Amino acid sequence: MGIKKITLGELAKKVEGEVLGDEELVISGLSSVENAAAGEITFVARVKGDECQVETCAAAVLVPQNVKRCALPAIKVKDPYLASAIVHNYFLEQPFVAQGIHKRAWIGEDCQIDPDVTILANVTLGDRVQIAARCFIYPGAYIGDDVVIGSDCIIHPNVTIENNCSLGNRVILHAGTVVGSDGFGYAVDGRGRHIKRPQVGTVEIGNDVEIGANCCIDRAAFGVTEIKSGSKIDNLVQIAHNVEVGENCILVAQGGIAGSTRLGSNVVVGGQAAIGGHITLQDGAMVAGRSGVNSDLEKGAVVGGFPALPIAQWRKAATIYGKLPELRKEVRGLKKDMEQFKTGE
Amino acid sequence: MGIKKITLGELAKKVEGEVLGDEELVISGLSSVENAAAGEITFVARVKGDECQVETCAAAVLVPQNVKRCALPAIKVKDPYLASAIVHNYFLEQPFVAQGIHKRAWIGEDCQIDPDVTILANVTLGDRVQIAARCFIYPGAYIGDDVVIGSDCIIHPNVTIENNCSLGNRVILHAGTVVGSDGFGYAVDGRGRHIKRPQVGTVEIGNDVEIGANCCIDRAAFGVTEIKSGSKIDNLVQIAHNVEVGENCILVAQGGIAGSTRLGSNVVVGGQAAIGGHITLQDGAMVAGRSGVNSDLEKGAVVGGFPALPIAQWRKAATIYGKLPELRKEVRGLKKDMEQFKTGE
Amino acid sequence: MGIKKITLGELAKKVEGEVLGDEELVISGLSSVENAAAGEITFVARVKGDECQVETCAAAVLVPQNVKRCALPAIKVKDPYLASAIVHNYFLEQPFVAQGIHKRAWIGEDCQIDPDVTILANVTLGDRVQIAARCFIYPGAYIGDDVVIGSDCIIHPNVTIENNCSLGNRVILHAGTVVGSDGFGYAVDGRGRHIKRPQVGTVEIGNDVEIGANCCIDRAAFGVTEIKSGSKIDNLVQIAHNVEVGENCILVAQGGIAGSTRLGSNVVVGGQAAIGGHITLQDGAMVAGRSGVNSDLEKGAVVGGFPALPIAQWRKAATIYGKLPELRKEVRGLKKDMEQFKTGE
Repeated sequence: MGIKKITLGELAKKVEGEVLGDEELVISGLSSVENAAAGEITFVARVKGDECQVETCAAAVLVPQNVKRCALPAIKVKDPYLASAIVHNYFLEQPFVAQGIHKRAWIGEDCQIDPDVTILANVTLGDRVQIAARCFIYPGAYIGDDVVIGSDCIIHPNVTIENNCSLGNRVILHAGTVVGSDGFGYAVDGRGRHIKRPQVGTVEIGNDVEIGANCCIDRAAFGVTEIKSGSKIDNLVQIAHNVEVGENCILVAQGGIAGSTRLGSNVVVGGQAAIGGHITLQDGAMVAGRSGVNSDLEKGAVVGGFPALPIAQWRKAATIYGKLPELRKEVRGLKKDMEQFKTGE
Repeated sequence: MGIKKITLGELAKKVEGEVLGDEELVISGLSSVENAAAGEITFVARVKGDECQVETCAAAVLVPQNVKRCALPAIKVKDPYLASAIVHNYFLEQPFVAQGIHKRAWIGEDCQIDPDVTILANVTLGDRVQIAARCFIYPGAYIGDDVVIGSDCIIHPNVTIENNCSLGNRVILHAGTVVGSDGFGYAVDGRGRHIKRPQVGTVEIGNDVEIGANCCIDRAAFGVTEIKSGSKIDNLVQIAHNVEVGENCILVAQGGIAGSTRLGSNVVVGGQAAIGGHITLQDGAMVAGRSGVNSDLEKGAVVGGFPALPIAQWRKAATIYGKLPELRKEVRGLKKDMEQFKTGE
Repeated sequence: MGIKKITLGELAKKVEGEVLGDEELVISGLSSVENAAAGEITFVARVKGDECQVETCAAAVLVPQNVKRCALPAIKVKDPYLASAIVHNYFLEQPFVAQGIHKRAWIGEDCQIDPDVTILANVTLGDRVQIAARCFIYPGAYIGDDVVIGSDCIIHPNVTIENNCSLGNRVILHAGTVVGSDGFGYAVDGRGRHIKRPQVGTVEIGNDVEIGANCCIDRAAFGVTEIKSGSKIDNLVQIAHNVEVGENCILVAQGGIAGSTRLGSNVVVGGQAAIGGHITLQDGAMVAGRSGVNSDLEKGAVVGGFPALPIAQWRKAATIYGKLPELRKEVRGLKKDMEQFKTGE
């Protein structure tokens, strides 16, 4: 893998930034302040005052726009985080080199697989699977019958995609994740036994979706469980049947969304939070970590706690919670005083 | 797969229902109101008043018993959910067609495998494994030494069943689930190091148990971790060593049961709830989602919160929680008033 | 596998104990009180008074030091749990018998694998993998390029170790666990889209670490996510990017540690607890189950609740929480009384 080289001036164009210092300086990579090597660029998200001082081996630094002086050559940008992501992706980008289908992979019947893919050993494909160009499928992955996978997807080891589910383009599924397991649905018979309600729907995942490790995305009872384009899901997240996750949502680790709930666009669900079933979280709603939401949220609502409250109210309540013993003591003191008044009369 | 056809009258017999309309109408499948196609039957769980109006392409509908008139031919039943499950399972039921053992599966020594099974590519069986008739084992599954699997089981992709565990009949394990991992047990030595306490027990799973994706059922330290017949477990659930889950329990996603705890029959544990170790939840106990239970629950107890309270008490307390700031303000106001009284004297 | 036999006197030396009864009694195994067979030793953690009475088929028993009389031959020890772990491990210890590399395992190029290992069917190794002596790798495991694994490790089925990660000696990874999945890091662009921040760090796991089933240990964004020697992690635990878990920590099932957080030595995190990002928990800190910690904890701090409080304060507050309805009633009563006083004047 050859190392890319680019001048600071050219990099600045990629991130709509302004160079402080030598535009002709050649940069060969990006890393964090602590890990950067000579020739690399690094980034500092926030700088107090207008001077950036940073201890690093890096040759240059991405800085926020309030910076006027910097010990190193720098690029001033609106958002150093975003700029560092763009620069880092630029350096890491490589042309896809297809390794083809490994002789120890098993491919079912009537599959349509682009010749420009990599499918490694011990992968299993069912029948009639469609895989578009530049997909990379790691060992131990299982792709069920009639699954459709768009271009440029990365399927990590031991992922399971059950029958009939579909992925858009540039989808990343991390190791151990399960797409299309049965939803959890039963009816109770007269003897208290749970009769399985067949789960005959599917899962549809849009473009540019990334799903972490060991997640579960259940197939719909009927119809579709949907993860729309641009949404990012952390590890160990549970998405129940018939959920709809809108575009560009963020679901942090170990959260769960119960059945038939609908998330709008750009919804954020914190870690270990739970979203109840059959409700709607409108665009831009944010749920703090470890919260539990049982009713609809309006556009842009920010909530916390369980049951969830507006975030400021929850923060105040949470503060008082720790002081409940004092509060009770006060009330008891008041009661005593009141008794004295009453008997004193 | 041929499509089954049956008259409305015959279907009504299967669900102990009463036909409104043409008994001779031929039905060829079941789906939801939104997804139903021509010729299919659908279902409506609840109807206000005695008239059922429903927008659907379905040819007929399962309705509750309060319905007297319906735009479509209908079957009146006690529980449309249950009836729809029975009807749907009837339409989907197919004779098992064994595909045998795939040449790319690996079978250990001295296994006893019924000839009427399907074992797909990249499955691995240890030694002395017993598998009864009509089991279907998906790619990537690992079945350890001396495991015993009853008839009609479905083992989804990338499931792990460790040595010596056993499954009853008609068990379904969804993808990525682990049965028989070591329980979490250590003793601390004089230097603060954790010495592993060997986990030499097993896991026994009864008949008609269904376990979701990416669950963990730990083997016992000694003896048995037991999931009794008819219990249904959702995704990402943790069952610790020596737990006993009674018959027909429901454990919703992301819940956890700590070691040596015993659940009676028909216990329900909500999503993300935690049940502490070494306690007993009697038959029919219900634990709300996100609750934490640290002590025994009596028969039929319904609790919520953490530490868990009777559900009504918890609901009241949770309501007041959000109003703690007002409550404190009231107490402070009272204190001021009280001071004035006191100084006024 | 031959059965080991050892006299009670010799066993007592191994656990620094004192024999009550026949030192020459021959013992052939260890089990729990309920499961012990003839010839085995069992253990009782606590005994009231100075006499140990126990119903068991065992031939002898490990007892705490307060015991003076026992119906069975006994060994008095400081900590029967610890002694039973030591004795049990002694009986189960077997010389490693290497089975070599299974013909159905796939080994990449330029790997360095000690000849004294067992690698079973359907294992996949990438390129340049290093595996030291006496490792046992179960079916379905994937070991990525450039991974380094120390001696005496056990990698259970369907484990994924992504590229460049490393394990020390005597590490156990249970089934389905993922080491080295990408950390969850994005930057938001001007259109609300999440741009992936490449995760180019690794995971380093020390010696004697045990990680349960279906856990996720994310690789660092830059640098290293680190699990230090002697730490034990239960099932379904989430460790985010750049976390540092100190030595001999205990992380109970379904807990999560957010990014860049640092745990000292001997930290205990209870089940389903959440530790926020970018904070430090000093040596010996303990976090109760289902708690949420959002700020640094001092050495030996013991906390509970969310947001976490000192454990005693949290217990008091939690008790009052259930009595909030009564508390509010009291406050309302006081207000009424106060109004009467005021109007009475």
